[in-house]
Amino acid sequence: MRKVEICLSPKLIHLFDPEGKIVVVVDIFRASSTMIAALASGVKGILPVMDLETCKSFKEKGYTIAGERDGKKAHGFELGNSPVAYLQGNYSGKKVAMTTTNGTLAIEKTKNGAHAVLVGAFVNLSATANHIQLENKDVLIVCAGWKGKFNLEDSLYAGALASKLHPHLGTDCDSSIAMKSLYESNQHRLQLFLGQASHAKRLQNHGIEKDIDFCLEIDKYNFIAKLQGNEISILNP
Amino acid sequence: MRKVEICLSPKLIHLFDPEGKIVVVVDIFRASSTMIAALASGVKGILPVMDLETCKSFKEKGYTIAGERDGKKAHGFELGNSPVAYLQGNYSGKKVAMTTTNGTLAIEKTKNGAHAVLVGAFVNLSATANHIQLENKDVLIVCAGWKGKFNLEDSLYAGALASKLHPHLGTDCDSSIAMKSLYESNQHRLQLFLGQASHAKRLQNHGIEKDIDFCLEIDKYNFIAKLQGNEISILNP
Repeated sequence: MRKVEICLSPKLIHLFDPEGKIVVVVDIFRASSTMIAALASGVKGILPVMDLETCKSFKEKGYTIAGERDGKKAHGFELGNSPVAYLQGNYSGKKVAMTTTNGTLAIEKTKNGAHAVLVGAFVNLSATANHIQLENKDVLIVCAGWKGKFNLEDSLYAGALASKLHPHLGTDCDSSIAMKSLYESNQHRLQLFLGQASHAKRLQNHGIEKDIDFCLEIDKYNFIAKLQGNEISILNP
Repeated sequence: MRKVEICLSPKLIHLFDPEGKIVVVVDIFRASSTMIAALASGVKGILPVMDLETCKSFKEKGYTIAGERDGKKAHGFELGNSPVAYLQGNYSGKKVAMTTTNGTLAIEKTKNGAHAVLVGAFVNLSATANHIQLENKDVLIVCAGWKGKFNLEDSLYAGALASKLHPHLGTDCDSSIAMKSLYESNQHRLQLFLGQASHAKRLQNHGIEKDIDFCLEIDKYNFIAKLQGNEISILNP
């Protein structure tokens, strides 16, 4: 039976072994949702970059550069971390170099050894779940969290994915049992429940309610996003 | 409004500030439940000790020594980590030096700076909650976890305590929101739900179902356990 583990914070990642597993990295507000939005609007590849300066240097290599720190567009970048900005602009066929506070870190820490690294978001939840069902691999869901702490939106996504993978799901990971239950008992009021999340409140203060609404829209897209080489792109069936 | 935070693993403790707060340390299976059982059976003080050798050295100072590693009584110790053993023996008036895999660590890491350190267990849940209601302090619940990872039983206790403290509870900690919800949606079947916990399963393999049953008995006792000086003892009203 497939084993599904959930790592609730990047600070705990050393306790898990990504070797041979499908790793799903999650940063609902907003890196992973933004990546899906970018790919949906025609971006052909996203290069996750750890720091702002390296990210900036990709501009002269023809990349559109996207940089976010603490919820805001970083100085000197064309794009921040807003999914809606991609949907409104014209980025078809472009490549994007992207660095975010929490999101790119999780990819960096797990890409070595993993069978595959997927980008998880509510906007393509079922597509990701369906893809995993077809592969005979264990799954490790890595939540980006907020500054090292547990956060509600990433954990609930992890629970949603675990719930979709049930009953093909082993239960020796307590985080999976807990988050699956948390999702199932709150799925009828997900927007309301997630509205309590500390990070959603921070983002509301930045006046980006449209981004929040986008990030919580379930199954808007039917493709999966996978790290292929150094870049994240749509996996062609 | 009182702020209630939950630290889901000792590996995340550096992200929280215990300063001036009531810290509740939790290790349901079994350190914190065992401490309450020991005090209930007449033990007058429990000295938490980090390592086995130091713990052993307290024998010649007149302490009963209790040592556990990986769920079993450590070699050369009178007691392991079984609450039922205290209830069956005669430890009235004795002092106990105790070291456990996960439990004593959480106490050590938080005792400096905290307003108070309490020992949290299902067996005295309401007593602890009622005591906290009387104090005008923020609360930090620290889960011992299992080898650094999230565990179900400690997190559910944390959720139960947060639930009892509601509505006198601030909600800017996502762990508190999540664990409160998790507890409230599973409290009608707590034993069944916790039976899935990986650690409960490990303990069942050790043949100590009576300990598990004890640890999950809610409100068996009506006293609170507090770190006073270097030792944990019953707080007299």
